Parts: sequence; C-alpha cells; structure tokens
Amino acid sequence: MLVNGKHYRTIWLKEGNDSIVSIIDQTKLPHLFEIIDLKSVEDVRKAIKDMWVRGAGLIGATAGYGMYLAALEADGGDFDAQFIKSGEILTATRPTAKNLSWAVERMIKKVCVAGICADEKRKIAKEEAQAIADEDAEFCRRIGENGLEIIKRIAEKKNGEVVNILTHCNAGWLAFTDYGSALSPVYAAKNAGINLHVWVDETRPRNQGASLTAWELGQQGVSHHLIADNSGGHLMQHGLVDMAIVGADRVSANGDAANKIGTYLKALAAKDNNVPFYVAFPSSTFDFEIFDGVKEIPIEERGAEEVRIMSGKTADGTICEVQICPDSTPAKNWGFDVTPARLITKLITERGVFGANREAIFNLYG
Amino acid sequence: MLVNGKHYRTIWLKEGNDSIVSIIDQTKLPHLFEIIDLKSVEDVRKAIKDMWVRGAGLIGATAGYGMYLAALEADGGDFDAQFIKSGEILTATRPTAKNLSWAVERMIKKVCVAGICADEKRKIAKEEAQAIADEDAEFCRRIGENGLEIIKRIAEKKNGEVVNILTHCNAGWLAFTDYGSALSPVYAAKNAGINLHVWVDETRPRNQGASLTAWELGQQGVSHHLIADNSGGHLMQHGLVDMAIVGADRVSANGDAANKIGTYLKALAAKDNNVPFYVAFPSSTFDFEIFDGVKEIPIEERGAEEVRIMSGKTADGTICEVQICPDSTPAKNWGFDVTPARLITKLITERGVFGANREAIFNLYG
Repeated sequence: MLVNGKHYRTIWLKEGNDSIVSIIDQTKLPHLFEIIDLKSVEDVRKAIKDMWVRGAGLIGATAGYGMYLAALEADGGDFDAQFIKSGEILTATRPTAKNLSWAVERMIKKVCVAGICADEKRKIAKEEAQAIADEDAEFCRRIGENGLEIIKRIAEKKNGEVVNILTHCNAGWLAFTDYGSALSPVYAAKNAGINLHVWVDETRPRNQGASLTAWELGQQGVSHHLIADNSGGHLMQHGLVDMAIVGADRVSANGDAANKIGTYLKALAAKDNNVPFYVAFPSSTFDFEIFDGVKEIPIEERGAEEVRIMSGKTADGTICEVQICPDSTPAKNWGFDVTPARLITKLITERGVFGANREAIFNLYG
Repeated sequence: MLVNGKHYRTIWLKEGNDSIVSIIDQTKLPHLFEIIDLKSVEDVRKAIKDMWVRGAGLIGATAGYGMYLAALEADGGDFDAQFIKSGEILTATRPTAKNLSWAVERMIKKVCVAGICADEKRKIAKEEAQAIADEDAEFCRRIGENGLEIIKRIAEKKNGEVVNILTHCNAGWLAFTDYGSALSPVYAAKNAGINLHVWVDETRPRNQGASLTAWELGQQGVSHHLIADNSGGHLMQHGLVDMAIVGADRVSANGDAANKIGTYLKALAAKDNNVPFYVAFPSSTFDFEIFDGVKEIPIEERGAEEVRIMSGKTADGTICEVQICPDSTPAKNWGFDVTPARLITKLITERGVFGANREAIFNLYG
C-alpha cells in the first residue's frame, strides 16, 4: 500500500543485506514513519511483544522471518533443537494470535527435516519466510475481492448513496504484509469507484484505530471519521452504519472470532439493529482444534499502563505520554474478546464468503 | 462526600459572600482540585457549556444557582423578561440534559409571580436554588438506600464473595450535589460493610470514568479498577460482573434512558449475559412528554477535538494535551446514546425501584 505515494509492505528483507529484517515501527505511527532493522531472534521477540509490529497476519509473517533469523543463529551442532527453542520463545510473546504459532510450526515442519545440512536449512528457512509473507499478501488481496462483492450489493441497494462501513481496531495493510483483511474489501471498493465512508473506532487502550486505521485510510484517500469506541451503537440505532467489518486473531472451528477487545460489543449492537457484521481473515487464523471460542480461546492480559497512560503529539510536535487517571488508580487490560458465531453474518477468507458455523467451515476446509 | 478527608458538596454559595457560587473545576480533576467562583450568568453558562460542572443533577443545581445570579443581575424594570432570557441562555448550553430545563423552569415558576418586588424575587430565587441543591442531595441519598437493597441481595447470594459492579461515565457525587445516583448505592453498600469492587469504564472521549469516578472511588476508599470502555463485554462473558449500574441524563415516559455514549453497548452485553442492568436517577431526570427515547431524545453533538485530543499529566507533573490521530483526521463526537427500556432491569429513583415501562412509571408518578 501507499505511504506518501510510495509502495510499501509492512515487513521485508533489507535491500543489500538479507540477514536483516526491516519493519515499520507501528508504535510511532501516525506521528512518525520510522523503519527499524531486526537482526536477531531477540529483536523479533521484542518487536512482537512490544507491538512494533502487530495484527494477525503481520505477527505471523514476522514470526516467519524471526524463524529465518533463528536459522541464521543456530549452529551446525544441534541446529533443530536451537531452532525449535527459538520458536518457543517467539510463540510465547502473544498468546491469543493464532497466526503466530501457525507460522512457527510451519517453519519448523519445513526446516527440521532429517538429512539436510545447516546451510541448506537456512536457505529453506529464508524461502519459507518469504513464502509466508507473500501468501499473506496474496490471501489478503483475495479477501478484498471476496468482500468487494458484499459492498457492491449494498452500494446497489443504496443507489449511489454513500455506503457507511464501521471497523474496529486496525485490520488494514499494517496488520498484514499488504492489503489487510477487514480493510482489503474497503480498498477494493474504493478502487472500484464505490462511494464509501468508514467509521473508525479509536480502539482503546492502544488506539490502533486512531493511530493506524485513520492513518492508513488517509494515505489511501478513503473518506472516514474517527469516533470513540462508545459511539457505534448510537450510529447503528440511527441508520448510519450499513455494514460492520473487522479482522480476527483466532477463529474457532465453529466460527467464534477472537478480535481486539470491544469487537463483541459492536457485534451485539449490529445484531440489535440488523446491521450485517462480517469477520475477515486469512485461513491461517483458524484454530480447528477449538469448538467453543468464548470458553477456550486464551485471552491475553496486558499491562495496566496501557490503560493509564496515553501517548500522543503535543501542539509543538513533541511525542509525549500523559496519565489520564489518578496516581493510585489500578487498571486491568485484556487485549481481546470473543464474538460468538451467532452474532456474525458471514466470515470472509481468501477461499470465499461463508456462514460462521461448523458445517459451512467444514464444507470449505474439510 | 470526602476530598482528602474533608466533606464537600460540588456546588455552594461562597462563605461570606452569597452572591458568588463556588464550584469544583471538574475539568482539572483528577490531577488538580481547584475551586472556581461563578459571579454572573455568563460565568454559569460557560461552566456548564465547557463542563467545569457536568452530570445530570449538578447541571440542574448549577442552573438553579445560575438563575439566582440571573435574579441578582435583573433590574427592577423588566425583571421577569430578563430573568426568563437568562433561563433561555442556560437551557441552550446542553441539549440532552433534562435536569437543566427542569431547574430553569422551576426557578421561573417560583420567581416570575405577579405582585412581588424585585428584592423579594431575589430572596425567593436564592431559597429555591438552595432547595434544588438540597433536594438533589437528599434524593441521591434515598437512591442510595433503594439501590442498597439490590446490592444486599446479590451479596447474600454470593455469600461474602466480592460483588462486582460495572459503571459507565461518572454518576457519582461529582455529577450531583452529593452522594451521586449510580454510585450512591455503591457508597451505601460500602458503608454497610458489603465486600464490593467496581469496574470503572474510562468513558471516552472525555474520560469521566478515568478522571472522576476513579478519583471519587479512591477518595472514598472503594475498591475498583479502571478498564477501557471496550472491556465490559468480555468481563460479563466471563462472570466478572454481578450487576451494572449507570446514571441518566433524560429518561422517557416509557423508560428509555439517555446516558453517556456507550451505555447502550453495555446494556446489550448485560442482556446477552444475564447481568442485571440498573439505571439510577432523581425524578427530575424524567421527561414525561417523550414516549420513544431512541427517536425523540435530542442527542448533543460535541466538538471533534474532544476525540482527537486527550488531556493528562506528564511524568514531571505538567498537565498537557496530546493529539492521538493524524493531523488531517476528522472526528465525530456524540455525547449520549439511548438505552431502550427493554434492556433495563429496573429503574432506581428516590421513590423506589421499579420496572422500565410505562405502567410501572405511571403507577409511581401518575
């Protein structure tokens, strides 16, 4: 996607030195656009844990590249054991994100094969990491094509009147290697000339909506307004939302979807107001071993300071942190909630658009 | 209630000069506790409009005192016309709050009576303003008694285990002249020795939960945690909320309740998880002329900067404003939403606890 008119992915091997992984530091957005070099598994661990990179697909892609750096770090002696150990370190960083363990396991399966020398393993690791990143972009592109059909139908019904789309958090290209999941259909619709407007939930406590989605949509020229997370219900009650679309961090085999905390509340409001609610994600987000997402998907609890302290830009352009509550106030901070399948109109993956239920998922995925 | 151990109301006539109205500047809380003197109708208009005072009951009480200042400002010539004009100016400041027009109308009814001289009118205005403030405190105290019975029943069922109560925005003593509406039962339960804990929604965009409710609860020694507005659904899904209780800014004759934006989303989650959802308010918040709150209650739209800019305290103690989105991002900011009566377990007023429906309301209010 475009940043100041130039095409970027969110992660890539550094030009001229392919033992370095480059990323955009997403904690600095929207005020600064900075590229960071990751040179070790430890760098990658920190980048995922501290959310320099975040978002389902990008976490997966970063884990893939992290395992490539793990292959460079592993010596000839006990290569596989060291490689697997690095995988465990990376997997432990973000418990809810399915794409993380999926990417690590895929790398291990490909690399830890008997009868191959360490150099060959490193070559395979590089190719597989690139394949994961490329596949992520390609799958997101297809999600855009599939979701576009839904937006087209709404646009036809509205006869050229603006189509209002509500999204929560950032499931745009910044959350993947390119295109995005929830925003990919939005970009496809924009390219198809559909008259649309996006309501951007600010997404407390980390404000990925205000800082990332608003920035992305601005860069691609998509009409939008930032709103407080509290506003979506009011908008839906008053006919100001035609569809809601969000991403997912893990989807159970029965269609329950873990996504950024607060998604469930928007799904309830959508149901209460007959607004269609879509969840878009690449198939790597499925966890086919879980059949009750609300009970079984592990929900990451993060630090209280993310709720107590906000970061932003002062009038003179300085980036600054401010505390919004009394000094002694304790806070709790869960990163995700789970939207039960019964509240989801359809799931959208690179394979198509289908019901959030066991049968529809089994039909497509076997 | 207590501030650093000393008893305060939120508004009072200045000791030694009863032509001055003193208030706590709530925009400075929780970082600074500052008292401001209001000396004119214009001061009062600004105090309500810019939310130095806010909250259903306190807006009403401030309007009452504002009309007392209007009586001091009106000259002998066309006293009533000037007095009514001041009332119009105050009423226009916050469109959703019912207590505002209620207090202004009450003052006009009492003061604008034929055959009384201006000095007598000023005396009546002072007494009536005091009466509104005193009544607000007394009604809130009774709301506490009525709500306490509900909390007691939950505490009995839980056999001494902590009772978890979720609240949104600030409907504590800072929103009234004393005690509060939603928090009055909490304080009564605390005084009755019930083991309780409050989940405090931060309440974007103005953060009244983080800055006011957290501060109030801390000052009164009530156990609590601050959470993002997005968290309530997750907590309810996992059995971590025993009841939700909120205030209201206007309640229709059929029991629909306008309250801070985002209340509706919590009510939906409560319904979905069988968590009882209560709305507490003094009777002055009723609008008996409205029978469909969602369609008919006017919803205030406030400035975009409240969403785009956050205020807080830096590490060195400076109060500072930071922008959380890109420079070019537009925002929309509705102040309230309406929770349909069907989602409300019971209404709590100074008169009792009763169903959110026309019949129950008619039975009690005729």
